[in-house]
Amino acid sequence: MEHIIMAHGSGGEATGELISNVFAKHFQNEYLAQMEDSTVVPVMQGSSRIAMTTDSFVVTPYIYPGGDIGRLAVCGTVNDLLMSGAVPKYLTCGFILEEGLPLDRLEEAAASMAATAKEAGVVIAAGDTKVIENRSGQGGGLMINTAGVGFIPDDQAAYSPSLIEPGDAVIVSGDLGDHHAAILASRMGIENTIVSDNAPLGEMVRALKDGGIRVHEMRDVTRGGLATVLHEFSQACGMQIVLREEDIPVSEKVRSFCGILGLDPLYMGNEGKLVAIVKGEDADEALRLIRSSRYGENAVAAGYVRKAPENESGMLLLETPIGGMRVLGPLFGEGLPRIC
Amino acid sequence: MEHIIMAHGSGGEATGELISNVFAKHFQNEYLAQMEDSTVVPVMQGSSRIAMTTDSFVVTPYIYPGGDIGRLAVCGTVNDLLMSGAVPKYLTCGFILEEGLPLDRLEEAAASMAATAKEAGVVIAAGDTKVIENRSGQGGGLMINTAGVGFIPDDQAAYSPSLIEPGDAVIVSGDLGDHHAAILASRMGIENTIVSDNAPLGEMVRALKDGGIRVHEMRDVTRGGLATVLHEFSQACGMQIVLREEDIPVSEKVRSFCGILGLDPLYMGNEGKLVAIVKGEDADEALRLIRSSRYGENAVAAGYVRKAPENESGMLLLETPIGGMRVLGPLFGEGLPRIC
Repeated sequence: MEHIIMAHGSGGEATGELISNVFAKHFQNEYLAQMEDSTVVPVMQGSSRIAMTTDSFVVTPYIYPGGDIGRLAVCGTVNDLLMSGAVPKYLTCGFILEEGLPLDRLEEAAASMAATAKEAGVVIAAGDTKVIENRSGQGGGLMINTAGVGFIPDDQAAYSPSLIEPGDAVIVSGDLGDHHAAILASRMGIENTIVSDNAPLGEMVRALKDGGIRVHEMRDVTRGGLATVLHEFSQACGMQIVLREEDIPVSEKVRSFCGILGLDPLYMGNEGKLVAIVKGEDADEALRLIRSSRYGENAVAAGYVRKAPENESGMLLLETPIGGMRVLGPLFGEGLPRIC
Repeated sequence: MEHIIMAHGSGGEATGELISNVFAKHFQNEYLAQMEDSTVVPVMQGSSRIAMTTDSFVVTPYIYPGGDIGRLAVCGTVNDLLMSGAVPKYLTCGFILEEGLPLDRLEEAAASMAATAKEAGVVIAAGDTKVIENRSGQGGGLMINTAGVGFIPDDQAAYSPSLIEPGDAVIVSGDLGDHHAAILASRMGIENTIVSDNAPLGEMVRALKDGGIRVHEMRDVTRGGLATVLHEFSQACGMQIVLREEDIPVSEKVRSFCGILGLDPLYMGNEGKLVAIVKGEDADEALRLIRSSRYGENAVAAGYVRKAPENESGMLLLETPIGGMRVLGPLFGEGLPRIC
């Protein structure tokens, strides 16, 4: 079995072979075929603004139940673009490989990236490869940076916490904590059936848009979990966001896994879930649209927005089944390292 | 002295503090202030195509004579955009930090990125931070991925190896090998006065454009060196590219450093040099324009293009002072690892 060596990153013949045999093979498209230092792509018609985002992925293990770093890298970047109202179009990818990485593992990740990009309707337009020494003495690791470019249609309504208003509904697109639990279980060597939810969310976002849903703010639920996202929204809009404890969606298996380890799914990362703050009267239709979309079958309306009492700033509250209210902060201290 | 810990990469409070205290402080601009998962920026007027590129920077040491990884990351990406005829506008940056990295070193790199971005006229529009374990037991390392977006003016002439024609001149914008030699000397603990040439090349590229120079192809000279770039051009255009040995620009100190170590400056990486293939009759004016631009004072016309004999494919040749011709291939085998 072949492995990555330092020469694969030095820009000479070995780099050229790696590009042909792995990256060009899986990522082939008309733009990448330009094989220049930059790739030239058209601006989307009817769009005068672009959205840009970047994320580095350092997840360990890089292949985990339900996915791998290649799928994750595409989903993470595509979802960030979607959350700004953009139509995701182009990705760049920078691979940082550790010496000793088996070539077939790298090829699996590249194939997975290519398949996920196809599913998400984006093109991998530019790439780069670097190799670093393997100083751990263990098997070589794999890190991927993706940057994404999408186009904001000129008729796209903005999403912003400043649009959030009393009476808005909090829609969560599915079960919380799956990615976090899958990574953690995999690292701990625990055998269970929890799989990562890593998924591109374009279908449900388009459904909301085409359905005319008045979405005021939207965010994918990643590092820090739902509570961290909603806490940030509440601070930015100055209102109270209330989550109903019994409506928070968590699968049975993740709930019992969390019970054993003392984890709170509200602070656990997902990679295929979004939370949308929508106009209250649109909530039922929004829920129906998301549930009919791929990856949205377990969506729920999990809370609502209300005015903060005078002289109080915005906050996130958890409403217990017996009507009590508990204040929720953002993730405190150290989250799970290298979850994405 | 504070150091990076795993929590800085987990998306919680420590990540938030790092963003405020280091990145937001140095990179502040109207776009980054959106603080969303994606940043929305305008499309440049009079442009219907964008150029995209990405590079990861893993240079060691990350501070070296004449520059640092932050400056390098901006220069590398900006120069790649320039070489496609684009006006560089926006960068994303993904920091991958090793545990134990001193915070003040990170801040130096961020400050250097910010200053270089300002010099190059680009805005850092989006960022991301991840932390990985320090498994070497040494001081923590620092890696930066940058992706860049530029806009191709609708009236921009294309650069392409297919435009190269007999009689074209090969213009090299300055001395070869400086970056490579500076990194290598630094790693070997050799004290000398060689400094990296890391620089953004926008001024000379604009001068060529504004001066109406017919540039047929252009590339920045990085990993693999001038010979690797010109070899690729010769293969792509099917012609012979001839370099005159006595006209190859190398500073005295780099030449003597290379002499001792048996290195060939033609295969050494730069980070602030370009090679332009220009219409023969424009060569003198091109040279004058580059020499009057920042970082171009040592530019030379170092060669020419001629038709390949029938039944021969393109190749790169070195013309010796006594009129001999030697065939040059691309960089063979392992280049200097982690040079950029």
